Amino acid sequence: MKFSEFIQQLAVSVPNPQVHLANDPELTGLSAIEDSQAHTLSYIEGEKYAHHVLTTPACALILPRHDGLQAQASDRHLAWIAVDEPRIALAHAIRCFYQPVSPEPGIHPSAQIHPTAHIGTDVAIAANVVIGAHVTLGEGVAIHPNVVVYAGAQVGDRTVLHANCVIHERSEIGPDCVIHSGAVIGSEGFGFVPVAEGWVKMPQSGHVVLASGVEVGCNATIDRPALGTTQVGRNTKIDNLVQVAHGCKIGDNCAIAAQTGMAGGVKIGNRVILAGQVGIVDHVEVGDGAIGAAQAGIHSNVKPGEIVTGSPALPHKVFLKASAVFRRLPEMHRTLKQLSRDAGLKE
Amino acid sequence: MKFSEFIQQLAVSVPNPQVHLANDPELTGLSAIEDSQAHTLSYIEGEKYAHHVLTTPACALILPRHDGLQAQASDRHLAWIAVDEPRIALAHAIRCFYQPVSPEPGIHPSAQIHPTAHIGTDVAIAANVVIGAHVTLGEGVAIHPNVVVYAGAQVGDRTVLHANCVIHERSEIGPDCVIHSGAVIGSEGFGFVPVAEGWVKMPQSGHVVLASGVEVGCNATIDRPALGTTQVGRNTKIDNLVQVAHGCKIGDNCAIAAQTGMAGGVKIGNRVILAGQVGIVDHVEVGDGAIGAAQAGIHSNVKPGEIVTGSPALPHKVFLKASAVFRRLPEMHRTLKQLSRDAGLKE
Amino acid sequence: MKFSEFIQQLAVSVPNPQVHLANDPELTGLSAIEDSQAHTLSYIEGEKYAHHVLTTPACALILPRHDGLQAQASDRHLAWIAVDEPRIALAHAIRCFYQPVSPEPGIHPSAQIHPTAHIGTDVAIAANVVIGAHVTLGEGVAIHPNVVVYAGAQVGDRTVLHANCVIHERSEIGPDCVIHSGAVIGSEGFGFVPVAEGWVKMPQSGHVVLASGVEVGCNATIDRPALGTTQVGRNTKIDNLVQVAHGCKIGDNCAIAAQTGMAGGVKIGNRVILAGQVGIVDHVEVGDGAIGAAQAGIHSNVKPGEIVTGSPALPHKVFLKASAVFRRLPEMHRTLKQLSRDAGLKE
Repeated sequence: MKFSEFIQQLAVSVPNPQVHLANDPELTGLSAIEDSQAHTLSYIEGEKYAHHVLTTPACALILPRHDGLQAQASDRHLAWIAVDEPRIALAHAIRCFYQPVSPEPGIHPSAQIHPTAHIGTDVAIAANVVIGAHVTLGEGVAIHPNVVVYAGAQVGDRTVLHANCVIHERSEIGPDCVIHSGAVIGSEGFGFVPVAEGWVKMPQSGHVVLASGVEVGCNATIDRPALGTTQVGRNTKIDNLVQVAHGCKIGDNCAIAAQTGMAGGVKIGNRVILAGQVGIVDHVEVGDGAIGAAQAGIHSNVKPGEIVTGSPALPHKVFLKASAVFRRLPEMHRTLKQLSRDAGLKE
Repeated sequence: MKFSEFIQQLAVSVPNPQVHLANDPELTGLSAIEDSQAHTLSYIEGEKYAHHVLTTPACALILPRHDGLQAQASDRHLAWIAVDEPRIALAHAIRCFYQPVSPEPGIHPSAQIHPTAHIGTDVAIAANVVIGAHVTLGEGVAIHPNVVVYAGAQVGDRTVLHANCVIHERSEIGPDCVIHSGAVIGSEGFGFVPVAEGWVKMPQSGHVVLASGVEVGCNATIDRPALGTTQVGRNTKIDNLVQVAHGCKIGDNCAIAAQTGMAGGVKIGNRVILAGQVGIVDHVEVGDGAIGAAQAGIHSNVKPGEIVTGSPALPHKVFLKASAVFRRLPEMHRTLKQLSRDAGLKE
Repeated sequence: MKFSEFIQQLAVSVPNPQVHLANDPELTGLSAIEDSQAHTLSYIEGEKYAHHVLTTPACALILPRHDGLQAQASDRHLAWIAVDEPRIALAHAIRCFYQPVSPEPGIHPSAQIHPTAHIGTDVAIAANVVIGAHVTLGEGVAIHPNVVVYAGAQVGDRTVLHANCVIHERSEIGPDCVIHSGAVIGSEGFGFVPVAEGWVKMPQSGHVVLASGVEVGCNATIDRPALGTTQVGRNTKIDNLVQVAHGCKIGDNCAIAAQTGMAGGVKIGNRVILAGQVGIVDHVEVGDGAIGAAQAGIHSNVKPGEIVTGSPALPHKVFLKASAVFRRLPEMHRTLKQLSRDAGLKE
């Protein structure tokens, strides 16, 4: 693809680009700036990578609005496009060159589809997929090999299920979702009531509801509750190995990073960000726009917009200040002993 | 089902209920109290939910022994049953209305069963299940689609294996166990001996033994050791994404919450509770009835009945008190500097 | 096998053993010392297990170079071999008796192999395996049941893929690797750019490259990046449930224990050891030979050879000393208040 053609395609998605065509090079693809290759388009964002403009073998660049970088690129006869949000331009640029792997259209003969299942038009169902009784698959659903969909589940239009994921009974998965490989949606919540002899199992008769545009990472698990629903809101993105326990209610547009876990009945607002390995105690509520930093242990409600860190979690700045002093505890302890002795306090 | 019929069914399992039939309503099912629906039975437990008695559209309630709530329910002409342990009554109530999804009886034609496998009576083996050489499946075993059982494994009577779980070679799974979707039982322990050039692999020739009534959560992993066994005791319940390393010995009736990890050779007593994201260092012993709070990092032995918190873990009360002071470290540090200066101590 | 035959086999791999044949007993296998059985070879390493020499029913022992233990074993008429590194001798000894389960040679008729795939000689491909378009499998590759290999992936000679693992598009897996059950290699990185209305998905067009001799544990996940590669170096061993995010570069001969997670773009040197449940923030660099202790939260670069502990991570000794004082915070706080009052400081 010529650089000029690429710019035409990109212009649909990216507002007001500045463009320098140079000799309108032929692009063979994209490459990361640290590892860029000849005849490719690459991408500069932030100070850390700016120096690559001077040496990159790439023939074209996505740049931020930065006169100096643009001049450097022009001096090297590189083609470039400069935009307000280079990362968004990059996302669209990758789409111009990259076609994700999809299962072949139609239903593979080895797929096992229950006769009572209702299958939409234009689906792609790969080898060894197993679809249970009374399942509903929407239009354009794509299912990679070895996926299992238990009885009564619903999968919305254009949703993609990656290999070896499992959708349990009566789960409702909205349109335009992506369930990644090995994820398990709608399995039994961890419900056991202690009695003298051990445990009475609480049957988990509820189900999981994912709204539109949800992504669930590889080997993540979302359990169904004893009664009612576990919910994930519109466009919320869940990373690999995350645990969402029975009865959690997660809002819209959240991002939940890898290995985070929520215990039962947690409520998460909209636009909440949870970094990796966060843990949230059962029935805690996290307000809209709040942020849990990596490894935070959230034991009590978090207000909207609040940032919390540490285990047990504190307001971010409080934690950082206390944490900075933590390493000085031994010298503080010695000084305090000295002062106590001098003051005649008994220890 | 009429409320009176439901009460008759429940009476078998729940001692000495108080019952108010009201107009003996027809029940269509159960619903969670926060989301309760007309014509359903719902459930009140604890102060937090008590106010719902005044407004719930449900027609019948499971109540605690509490005169005030009972009077309020009677005033609203709701049918109710009051018991000592409402959660246990709820568990039995759900069983009256809810039938879990099981694979169809018999062996699906697409299942691959090794001719040397020994299959018990009344099994249900779903599509694409693969059963290896010399495997033994007990009576009434139910195996959901795409499960793999490696050679020489044994699965006890009535045990359920959910979709895409893997049972490795020579594992012994007791009767009445549930292995949830994607769990891996009996895989190779992480055994590598450091040498100058890298690592020598320690072959893991042992196996995993799960006693009766064990549950293992989705995508949890239980490894086999180099020699001998990794063991999980009777009725112990293991949640999603838990890691049990090679050679661990876990007692009876434990509950181990999601994302907890045990390193090699850990010993856990009976009735131990480990909350979410707990980590236990190799060869540590945790006594009967001990509790590890969420995110605890357990580096040394825990006495029977002890509760530990924090990383490294401390006795629970010690941790809570120290943790409450932690946020004051910056002011403590300032005060201490001031006092030191005043006392003429050099810093 | 006679003990003397065993010694002959072992001698190939273990330098300069001292041997005491006793009555050259017949060995039926190996057993762990704590649970050792008659007619087996067992293994003593370290003080903790030394007392077993006096009572073990095993008929032969692997011992350290320790005159006292050797004399005790001889007195009991046990056969023994003493070596510099008993654990390495044990690893070789297990190999003499133990044969791992492998899929049957050839391609199972239920496997679905795309006609454009290139399959090496001497492969063993089990039931229900699905191999996508343009996949390359090397010589002697062994694939257990229900594995899915997406289009364009490459799997090196003698590599083993365990049941239900997933290899995503364009992944390059070196020779002599082991991918354990349920692991997912090469899935989409968690890339979403925040915009006013939610998230723009960053397509993940890169791929994952594993060098030779890499092991990846059960249900671990290694994501591919938007551009370029996620890399794992030669002989690096990754345990169960580990998360390696998009664009990480991990060196050679590392050991990464269970449930550890790395955010995007992390760089790990050679011979790095990360204990269980470690978390590493995005783009952090960890130098050669560094060690992250269990549950460490690594927020900034770690120097070669450094040991870090805690969250946020500190140098190991600094953390241990500060951590030892942590539990005294309440008494320190009280003393400080007393001293402040006495000194007339306002609080």
